[in-house]
Amino acid sequence: MATIKAKPEIYWISGSPYAWRVMLALEAKKVAYDSHLLDASRGELKTPEFLRLNPRGKVPVLVHGDYVLTESLAILAYLDRRFPSPPIFGEHAYETAQIWRLISEYLSYLHEPLNRVTTPIFAGKAAEKAEDIHAALRTVRAELARLEENLTLATWLASESISAADIAIYPFVRLLLRAAAKPAAAAFGFGLLPLREAYPRLAAWAQEVERIPGYERTFPPHWKELLKDAA
Amino acid sequence: MATIKAKPEIYWISGSPYAWRVMLALEAKKVAYDSHLLDASRGELKTPEFLRLNPRGKVPVLVHGDYVLTESLAILAYLDRRFPSPPIFGEHAYETAQIWRLISEYLSYLHEPLNRVTTPIFAGKAAEKAEDIHAALRTVRAELARLEENLTLATWLASESISAADIAIYPFVRLLLRAAAKPAAAAFGFGLLPLREAYPRLAAWAQEVERIPGYERTFPPHWKELLKDAA
Repeated sequence: MATIKAKPEIYWISGSPYAWRVMLALEAKKVAYDSHLLDASRGELKTPEFLRLNPRGKVPVLVHGDYVLTESLAILAYLDRRFPSPPIFGEHAYETAQIWRLISEYLSYLHEPLNRVTTPIFAGKAAEKAEDIHAALRTVRAELARLEENLTLATWLASESISAADIAIYPFVRLLLRAAAKPAAAAFGFGLLPLREAYPRLAAWAQEVERIPGYERTFPPHWKELLKDAA
Repeated sequence: MATIKAKPEIYWISGSPYAWRVMLALEAKKVAYDSHLLDASRGELKTPEFLRLNPRGKVPVLVHGDYVLTESLAILAYLDRRFPSPPIFGEHAYETAQIWRLISEYLSYLHEPLNRVTTPIFAGKAAEKAEDIHAALRTVRAELARLEENLTLATWLASESISAADIAIYPFVRLLLRAAAKPAAAAFGFGLLPLREAYPRLAAWAQEVERIPGYERTFPPHWKELLKDAA
């Protein structure tokens, strides 16, 4: 296949865990990229220009030469083929299977309950959704305990070095922790903070992800602003 | 990597669309396999022996030599690395991305509404879930229309030959059609049958999948019994 000389360009919004996956993968692979930070509140995901890139009006979008790529996991798979070193989907068949197993289990068992917890917290609807948040939290905690167990013998979730499993799951764990720190979460007894006490191996794992050189560039800018406001 | 001489062994239950994916991939790749058909109604997914293979008590499980693999998409990724010809995740990076894009879009936009339609129909709860079935059907039809559009210029959903996208999505489309044919579906105006009139390209696509040599071996046995009963 012809080499594409252009740098990949990522379209993202601050705080999208889906877009965060792609930026973490680019940094983990040390791929230089151009960044287009959009503002959903100004309708920038629904402009005719952006809808030509992704008719669903969602980030991330990765443009690479003539290619326009959507769906975060598909972009991770693309990046791994295009920039194979270091591999994030494993070097051997069994490793590949373990990485996709972790991602699939996240999608099948944790993703939806995690959203049922975080979405109402951020939307200011925690009180009216209280019963469902409590139910979802039980599943979230059970799945986090499985992830914690997974880290008993290993630094990373699915292989000996950072993989797409870590990259796909980390932004959502971080989103969950952000929800847990909101005042509206206090009534629910999330039992997640501080993470190093609730799930010490997950806390160590998150720190490893945060040591990726360039991690700072991927961190949602408006989360930083809020941290500054709070300081 | 050492060659594994043992044949893959699949554990499955009749009618599981997840297990069906793996059997279709094995047939598409012409890989000989041993089959263990389990009966969930006799508790065969919850025996200590089976829970050792998959602590979540779900099919499919693929045992290959010393490896025990779970999660259908992870197993497809494994099979593609272990038995690379014909490839089901593409030969080039962009093709790989399109295949995972289709699978991701299925998971993000169609999987859950499809289950909200099929589960109550099969569980005899269509009447009490009527409102939600109607709402989910609107999304299902919109997503089927997108798939139909995708087939305008191509036989297969994501690449020039059969891929994991076709293999991952087909069993769920087939499950949906089975629900649509149930007497309980009549009240809802599913608008799916006959498929060749509602979505002619999807109907032609389904027929292509059904031409995989060995397809018959993957067809849920208890669906055949019911077809016989009805004849």
